[in-house]
Amino acid sequence: MTAADTATDLDALAYRLDRDHVFHSWSAQAALQPLVIAGGRGCTVWDHAGREYLDLSSQLVNVNIGHQHPAVTRAIAEQAAQLTTISPATANLARGQAAQRISALAPDGFDKVFFTNGGADAIENAIRMARLHTGRDKVLSTYRSYHGNTGAAVVATGDWRRVPNEFARGHVHFFGPYLYRSEFWSETAEQECERALHHLERVIQCEGPASIAAILLESVPGTAGVLVPPPGYLAGVREIADRYGILLILDEVMAGFGRTGAWFAFSRHDVVPDLITFAKGVNSGYVPVGGVIISDPVAHTFDDTVFPGGLTYSGHPLAAASIVAALDAMASEGIVANAERVGRETLGPALRALADDFPVIGEVRGEGVFWALELVADPHTRTPVPAATMGKLKTGLLERGVLPFIADNRLHVVPPCVITDAEATAGVAAIRDVLAGL
Amino acid sequence: MTAADTATDLDALAYRLDRDHVFHSWSAQAALQPLVIAGGRGCTVWDHAGREYLDLSSQLVNVNIGHQHPAVTRAIAEQAAQLTTISPATANLARGQAAQRISALAPDGFDKVFFTNGGADAIENAIRMARLHTGRDKVLSTYRSYHGNTGAAVVATGDWRRVPNEFARGHVHFFGPYLYRSEFWSETAEQECERALHHLERVIQCEGPASIAAILLESVPGTAGVLVPPPGYLAGVREIADRYGILLILDEVMAGFGRTGAWFAFSRHDVVPDLITFAKGVNSGYVPVGGVIISDPVAHTFDDTVFPGGLTYSGHPLAAASIVAALDAMASEGIVANAERVGRETLGPALRALADDFPVIGEVRGEGVFWALELVADPHTRTPVPAATMGKLKTGLLERGVLPFIADNRLHVVPPCVITDAEATAGVAAIRDVLAGL
Repeated sequence: MTAADTATDLDALAYRLDRDHVFHSWSAQAALQPLVIAGGRGCTVWDHAGREYLDLSSQLVNVNIGHQHPAVTRAIAEQAAQLTTISPATANLARGQAAQRISALAPDGFDKVFFTNGGADAIENAIRMARLHTGRDKVLSTYRSYHGNTGAAVVATGDWRRVPNEFARGHVHFFGPYLYRSEFWSETAEQECERALHHLERVIQCEGPASIAAILLESVPGTAGVLVPPPGYLAGVREIADRYGILLILDEVMAGFGRTGAWFAFSRHDVVPDLITFAKGVNSGYVPVGGVIISDPVAHTFDDTVFPGGLTYSGHPLAAASIVAALDAMASEGIVANAERVGRETLGPALRALADDFPVIGEVRGEGVFWALELVADPHTRTPVPAATMGKLKTGLLERGVLPFIADNRLHVVPPCVITDAEATAGVAAIRDVLAGL
Repeated sequence: MTAADTATDLDALAYRLDRDHVFHSWSAQAALQPLVIAGGRGCTVWDHAGREYLDLSSQLVNVNIGHQHPAVTRAIAEQAAQLTTISPATANLARGQAAQRISALAPDGFDKVFFTNGGADAIENAIRMARLHTGRDKVLSTYRSYHGNTGAAVVATGDWRRVPNEFARGHVHFFGPYLYRSEFWSETAEQECERALHHLERVIQCEGPASIAAILLESVPGTAGVLVPPPGYLAGVREIADRYGILLILDEVMAGFGRTGAWFAFSRHDVVPDLITFAKGVNSGYVPVGGVIISDPVAHTFDDTVFPGGLTYSGHPLAAASIVAALDAMASEGIVANAERVGRETLGPALRALADDFPVIGEVRGEGVFWALELVADPHTRTPVPAATMGKLKTGLLERGVLPFIADNRLHVVPPCVITDAEATAGVAAIRDVLAGL
C-alpha cells in the first residue's frame, strides 16, 4: 500500500466514523456530507490526501491567528506537560497570566476576568452579573444577533435559533441599525443611527426602565451579517443606558481580538461597556475557552457577596497557556495591524470592485477581516437570492479550493487575521470566478 | 538567586496575578486565599516550591485518570501539532474516533455522540433533544441534584444554586431516595425505594404525564452527597417513564467513566436510559469537553429534521484526541477495575472503620472512588455539624498535605481512580488524625 493509499484510507475512515458516530449541530443528520480536514497552517487547511483549501471562514470565525500557529501549539504542548487541569478554586500561574494579558488589553478599570468554556456561557455569566449588580431582571438585545445556545443565552439571541429554544423569561428584543434593510425608513447612516436610538429608548420606556438590567449587543453583529454600526450608535446606546441606570454588555465573542482590525471592535466606536464577553479570537479556539471582562464596579458587587455561577473548567490551565501565547504572538507579530491593513488596502477594495461588476451583490459591508457580501435577486427590491444560488456559490468555491462562510443570502469573507495580500487577492478571484458562472 | 527563591517567587507571582485579575466562581471575591498549584502526577499535586498534596478531591471530581497521565498529555501534544481546532461541520479523524470509543462503551443502540464543551451544555442539549423528540415541555429532576449552571441547566438543578438563577420554565422538582434523611418516613432501603417511586409517579400524575418530556437524574447524585440509589430505584424510574412515554436522561457527568468502579454508574443498576450526559471523567478534564450519548430512536428524530443546537467547539480535535488516549489508557491499564477494587477492599472498609470510631460520622456512603462521610453534631437527630467544624476539617487536612472535597456538612472522598492502596490508607489516616483533634 502506498502512502497515498494510506492517506485516502484515513480520509475514508474519518468520514465513515463521522457518519456512524458523530451527531452534528444545527443540522438534519441524514444528508450531511462533511468535508474531512486533517491539518492546517495559516490560512490553509487540508485533508489526509493533501487536498488544500484556502480558509475564508476562519472555521466559525474563530481562527484569528491562523491555523496551527507554532507559538501557540508549542505553548499547549508545554502546558500539557506541566499541568493540564486544576480546580477553579486554586491559583495557577498560566491562568493568572492569561487574565492579566486580557485585562491589559481592555480599557482602564477592567481588572478582573471570569473564565468560561466558550461564548455562550460567557453571555450567561455576564447576564447573571448584570442582573445581580442592578437587582433588575430584563435583558434587551436585538433580533439580529447571536449570543449562544444555552438556556438563557439562546433566548437572548435574536435570530431563528431562538425560536425552538424559548425556555426563559425576561428577554426583550428590539431592532438595531441596518441601513441596507432599515426598520426605520431611513435613507442615510445619520438617520438610521438617530432613529435606531430613538426606537431603543422607546422600547426601554415601554418596558419600564427600572425593570431592565442590561442592554446586550454584539459590538458588530456577526452571523447576522457583519452589521457595522453607524457612527455614533454605540456611543448613543451608552448614553441611553447611563440615563436609565442600565448596564451595557458588549459581546466581542466574534468581533474581538483582531477581527475588525482592532483588539476590541468597540474601541473603534468611542464607547466603553460595563461587561465584555469574549471567546473565539482570544486563543483562536485552539482550546475551548471564553469569558467575561468585568468593570471594577460590577466586580466589587461580588467582593463580599457570593457570585452564584461557576463551571468545572473555569480558568483551565491549558486554555490559559494558549491565550497567553496567542495574545503575545498577535502583539509581537502585528497580526491585528495586519488585519486592519489588509482590510483597508486589499480585501475591502477587492470586494467593493466585485460589487461594482456583479449586480447580484447588493451591498459590501465590513472592516478588517470581517466582511459580508449581500446577494440579492434584484438590486432595487433587495430581495435575497434563493437558497439554491447560495448552494451553487458554496459548491463552486469548494471546487476551487476555497472554504466559504455562508449565512442566509450572504457570503461572509472572514479569513484569519494573518491573511496575506496574495491570499486575499486569490480568494476574491475565486469568488469572482464563481459569480461569473452563476 | 537560588532555584528555591525562584520557585517561591513563582508561587507569589501566581498568587498575586490571581488576586489581581481572576474572578472566581461560586465565591465572594474579597476574602479568597487560593492555593497555588503548579503541577501534578497521579494522585499528587504540588506548588512551585515543591509542597505536595494528596488529591482526595480529583479537583472537581474530574481527574479520574489521575494528574498528568503521560499517554494523555502526549496525545494532546501530538494533536496540537497536527490540528487543534476545526469547525463542527467538518469530519475529523480524532473526533470520529472519540465518538466511536464512547459509543462502544455505552449500551447497544447508542450509536451517536453530540459533543459539547462541558457538563452544563451536555444537559442543555439532552433536554433540547428530549423536548423535541417527545413534543413535550416539562423536565422533572430532583431537589438534591446539580446539572450545570447555564440558563436551562441551572434551573433543572435542585440545590441552592438554582435559586438565584430561576430564569426558565418547565422545570419541576421532586424528591429522590435518601434513606439517611428520608423525605418518606422510611426505615429500610426497600421502603425508601418503593416510597420514592410512588412519590415520583404521583408528581407525574399531578403535573400531567402528557406535558413531561423527560426525567433527568444523576445516576448517583454527586455534589448532593454521593446518594447511591437503593437497589431497584433506577429500574423503577425506567418503568414509570416507559408507562407515561417519558424519556429518561441519566446524568453521568460526575458518576461516569470509572468513578463508581464501572464505566457508567447506571450499569450497576440494571437500567438503560434514553440519553446519557457526560463530561469530567471522559478525559479527566485535560481539555474542556462534554457531550450527550444518544439512543438510536432519539437520534433518528433528527435524521431529516434540523437539531437546533450547536456550539463552535463541538467535537474539538484536541479534546477528542485526549478522550481517545484517556479511554484507551483506562481500559489497557485496568483503571476502572482499580477504582472498584480499592473502593471494595481498602477505601470503603477504612472509611467505615472511621465511622465506627468517630460518632461525628453519621453515615458513610459510596462505591468505587466515590464516597461521602456525613458529619453530624448528634447521631440521633442527625443534625449537621456547624460550618466552622467543616472549616477546621478542611484546614487540618490541608496542613497534613491532603486536598479535600467538602460540601455542606460532608467530606467527599473522591480521589482519582488510579489511587493505590497505600495512598488510600494514608489519606484515611490523615482524616482520622484531624477528626481525633476536632
